[in-house]
Amino acid sequence: MQFHLNGFEPGDPEIADPAQRYPASGAQGALPAEVDVLIVGCGPAGLTLASQLAAFPDIKTVIAEQKPGPLLRGQADGIACRTVEMFEAFGFSEKVLKEACWINETTFWKPDDKQRSHIVRSGRIQDVEDGLSEFPHVVLNQARVHDFYLDVMRKSPSKLEPHYARRFIDLAIDKSSGNDPHGVTARFERVDDAHQGEIETIKARYVVGCDGARSQVRKSIGRTLEGDSANHAWGVMDVLAVTDFPDVRMKSLIQSASDGSIIIIPREGGYLFRIYVEMDKLAENERVTNRNITADDVIAAAQRVFKPYTLDVKQVAWWSVYEIGQRLCDKFDNIGNGSTGELPCVFIAGDACHTHSPKAGQGMNVSMQDGFNLGWKLASVLRGRAKPELLHTYSGERQAVAKELIDFDREWAQVISSSKGADPAETQRYFVQHGRYTAGTATRYRPSLLTGEGTHQHIAKGLIIGMRFHSAPVVRIGDAMRTELGHTVKADGRWRLFAFAPKGDVGQAGGRIHALCNYLEHDAASPVRKYTPRGADIDAVIDLRAVFQQEHRDIEVIGLPPLLRPAKGRFGLTDYEKAFTPDLKGGQDIFELRAIDRDRGCLVIVRPDQYIAHVLPLDAVFEISAYFAGFMTPAA
Amino acid sequence: MQFHLNGFEPGDPEIADPAQRYPASGAQGALPAEVDVLIVGCGPAGLTLASQLAAFPDIKTVIAEQKPGPLLRGQADGIACRTVEMFEAFGFSEKVLKEACWINETTFWKPDDKQRSHIVRSGRIQDVEDGLSEFPHVVLNQARVHDFYLDVMRKSPSKLEPHYARRFIDLAIDKSSGNDPHGVTARFERVDDAHQGEIETIKARYVVGCDGARSQVRKSIGRTLEGDSANHAWGVMDVLAVTDFPDVRMKSLIQSASDGSIIIIPREGGYLFRIYVEMDKLAENERVTNRNITADDVIAAAQRVFKPYTLDVKQVAWWSVYEIGQRLCDKFDNIGNGSTGELPCVFIAGDACHTHSPKAGQGMNVSMQDGFNLGWKLASVLRGRAKPELLHTYSGERQAVAKELIDFDREWAQVISSSKGADPAETQRYFVQHGRYTAGTATRYRPSLLTGEGTHQHIAKGLIIGMRFHSAPVVRIGDAMRTELGHTVKADGRWRLFAFAPKGDVGQAGGRIHALCNYLEHDAASPVRKYTPRGADIDAVIDLRAVFQQEHRDIEVIGLPPLLRPAKGRFGLTDYEKAFTPDLKGGQDIFELRAIDRDRGCLVIVRPDQYIAHVLPLDAVFEISAYFAGFMTPAA
Repeated sequence: MQFHLNGFEPGDPEIADPAQRYPASGAQGALPAEVDVLIVGCGPAGLTLASQLAAFPDIKTVIAEQKPGPLLRGQADGIACRTVEMFEAFGFSEKVLKEACWINETTFWKPDDKQRSHIVRSGRIQDVEDGLSEFPHVVLNQARVHDFYLDVMRKSPSKLEPHYARRFIDLAIDKSSGNDPHGVTARFERVDDAHQGEIETIKARYVVGCDGARSQVRKSIGRTLEGDSANHAWGVMDVLAVTDFPDVRMKSLIQSASDGSIIIIPREGGYLFRIYVEMDKLAENERVTNRNITADDVIAAAQRVFKPYTLDVKQVAWWSVYEIGQRLCDKFDNIGNGSTGELPCVFIAGDACHTHSPKAGQGMNVSMQDGFNLGWKLASVLRGRAKPELLHTYSGERQAVAKELIDFDREWAQVISSSKGADPAETQRYFVQHGRYTAGTATRYRPSLLTGEGTHQHIAKGLIIGMRFHSAPVVRIGDAMRTELGHTVKADGRWRLFAFAPKGDVGQAGGRIHALCNYLEHDAASPVRKYTPRGADIDAVIDLRAVFQQEHRDIEVIGLPPLLRPAKGRFGLTDYEKAFTPDLKGGQDIFELRAIDRDRGCLVIVRPDQYIAHVLPLDAVFEISAYFAGFMTPAA
Repeated sequence: MQFHLNGFEPGDPEIADPAQRYPASGAQGALPAEVDVLIVGCGPAGLTLASQLAAFPDIKTVIAEQKPGPLLRGQADGIACRTVEMFEAFGFSEKVLKEACWINETTFWKPDDKQRSHIVRSGRIQDVEDGLSEFPHVVLNQARVHDFYLDVMRKSPSKLEPHYARRFIDLAIDKSSGNDPHGVTARFERVDDAHQGEIETIKARYVVGCDGARSQVRKSIGRTLEGDSANHAWGVMDVLAVTDFPDVRMKSLIQSASDGSIIIIPREGGYLFRIYVEMDKLAENERVTNRNITADDVIAAAQRVFKPYTLDVKQVAWWSVYEIGQRLCDKFDNIGNGSTGELPCVFIAGDACHTHSPKAGQGMNVSMQDGFNLGWKLASVLRGRAKPELLHTYSGERQAVAKELIDFDREWAQVISSSKGADPAETQRYFVQHGRYTAGTATRYRPSLLTGEGTHQHIAKGLIIGMRFHSAPVVRIGDAMRTELGHTVKADGRWRLFAFAPKGDVGQAGGRIHALCNYLEHDAASPVRKYTPRGADIDAVIDLRAVFQQEHRDIEVIGLPPLLRPAKGRFGLTDYEKAFTPDLKGGQDIFELRAIDRDRGCLVIVRPDQYIAHVLPLDAVFEISAYFAGFMTPAA
């Protein structure tokens, strides 16, 4: 898609009339008196969380935002492969893939040895290594990502709309409330013209602060961001410009001899691009706001680095100046490290608990994963499926990940900052080595209540416990559809069991798949039986899918165990989408790709947020049941 | 996507609340007094035409429909590969691919030799041959296809909405009007409650009857559908049902020994499927409506064929009974075969001029191609870019195609009708042989004003003059994006010139690509110069794209001739999406795939509706200019 040719216009580019691209939206009326979950802030973390909770009409959610309406321009734009995988679960990956700019290659530029004031290309590499994800690395205006989430929320069973123009004031936790579950009381000030200054009070079971680096929710639970005081100012601008620089539609890392570094990020629509420009070093304790940097300063700095190439900026769609600062909270909820028995009721997510330099493209991506991590946990507890102790794992998992990414980000920021006088070849090496961090696929949760030990990891070496389920192509037996196995994991709060069959097993009686299905469907100890509410579909809580080793035509769908062709819904219709074979014609055998033991097969337990909880032998029924018993609550 | 589990609900399945899936729509108020184009009928032909015209805000279009609002259920469902290619041009292929059911395999069933009253599988084949199209064969409720077109219209510069509840009465052509271009006067009766019986009169330059097999527009120009009187009744029903028939999610052609044939078509959402059932043979001149066939009769007939399998129908979402009838008009406009000099002003499209048996899946697909064929031609004439004589080619091209498809359809209908006692193996052979017809890719226009002679066909043997441009993967040089070359052809009324470079040519001065670009950009005889309005972008009418033979990293975008990196729009921004190389890493070299002469290269002229108008040598500048001079009008 090409757009923005005659100037940047926010909103849906498929709507010809710019005035109709962002219709009025937002919830009308006052905040309700009581909710299950109150989300403060409509950024990437808050909207991911809200979109997840909106799937459950039995959960009452409010999301409140200080701004008067949806974001229209600027801010983050990098969307990692891992994030597109999550968008697939939320059902809008195809919209992002269509509208975004795909980052296919990254180029590296250094001072020309013949003329040091000029730059010259020193390297050019594929941006994402082959096979890392079924999705690409793309860039798209953060505002459009918000739009897609808002659309998910609007179309959901809950028809959730944000309450805009609400400034969060403070919250109080009533620990004495005993059996009153709505133990948190929050106050907001309305900042819309019609209700300016009115105070609203709302009681919630859980409050989640997604209100950015200056989070008031964080302050209200007494937590602080700790970390580097930044002393480098960077300018960022989205421009429509004419240039003879040849790589303006590639991601380009440019180091000049004496004028600092710039990064070029091509953007959606084919014309717009983003420039990050290293500005002067700041003095100790100096703030960017004290420097009076203008858009023209940023352009001039970019032009100095760009020589011998020209840069003729025609329109600045958005610009900003910021200081690099990697900062982190030590805990992402309201429970002290030492306390025992207390359960968290206030959480913080996204920039409220970790900030990143924009250039590694981590901020928005990590924030959305925070929301995805917390969303299904809150839903499970609120819907009575899991014990509230599960909520401790949010801070436990996400704080460690944020720390790891901040360490990476700090290192990366130093590598690409010319102040270090880095070797361009080293920059390129570092970039390649750390591609999995940038792609968001390096995240790995440590063994815990939710994450199993690696005792049986050897039977599925390519499906790492604690990491996201790495999808691979398969063929669905029922309709011979070539599809991605990972795309069966939707953001619906359900667990997936992927059973990979041993060689020769076609689901026949006496085989391991048949035995597993039999156990799961009929045994009193089976987690499917224990946790599925009466009257619900048999896959409503735990969804079993099987992958056989044969060619898809060699397996008859009606010969499969009943659990792999379950009767569902009010009519008892057959679900034909449970059983798969490798994509042998396409030459991509999932058993090979993910190093699955062909003789033994394996069972992979995948969480509602697509992370691998456990890898177990197919006959380890006791371990399967024990895993779920650790945190689940038997259904009534 | 899975949906319809608990019953069929029309509209967008991504919206959780069925009541919000099809909001009120349609134009308000009376018909305007005068328009450029009046389209009668909101079926596939009319909506394709309207969507095309809506792209041009300088063309005033009305589309009127007798029904009170958008279609919600039933009717056609087959979407051929070729049709998805067209949807890509209209910008909504990804929505169809997501929501539709993909037809991956087709199975064949015959009477069991051991027990003739039972059926047994006799064959199973891939539905579409490899490489036939970059898109699959899919099925989706016709109503959803309408919805996607209505969305295109709504978002277009013209913001076109249908006028519903208008019954077309008649039209009059004022041949004496001389210079009055609005020579056709049409009358409508309003059939909405508020305005019941009111008569509206509208004057139009052109009227297009897309009003179905009983077309009043056709009658008003004195044409008739000629062809078979059908004597076979078929029932069709969309059902939610439970069955142990193993291929219910495949397309299945089933011939029983003595109870006729049925066809199974799996449908969107994973549960719904369609059954075509051969009912009794009709007596000479007997009509289906005289037989009092009920839904239960259709189910019972299907159950008889299905033995030994069971069919337990839980819900009938839609059903109908029809007679097979392949019928055709001898001309698709209001000009008699013998008349000279007269220009057409009334056209008919879709079922108004050709009807097909539903089982070859042709009707909706051919009708949409009618609309696509006529749309750009009307737009070109109305916008002063082409001579009105161009409009003769609509009937010339589409009548011949309809005749060919009806011949195919008649043969196919006989093959799958058990009355002929066909050999199942023969059915399968016929199906495979004629896959290109079913896929919609067999259409070939004969040499004419618009379609060149095959003098130079040998320099691009896989890009057949008169057939649709068969896309192939390429890599865009500017951003290393792997994409489909054919997807550059959008439904925007523009012509494309695809210049395939000879070996060694990288666009350098002295090479053929450079010479061609130079000619097109600067020569007074160049069609780019002659037909592009002053002040418009240089690719506004004729859009040149080049494909080189090298690896994409071996070509620098800034070394290309200016016409391959043109300055566009109010800022003179560079368009980086004009130059490509083969997808060598992916192993799909377009020069190989389409048998393009590597030594000479070639130029392929592609029409706005994606058909190949001509194949010429790169230096045949006289022939290029002569081609366009045949029907284009120099810009003011």
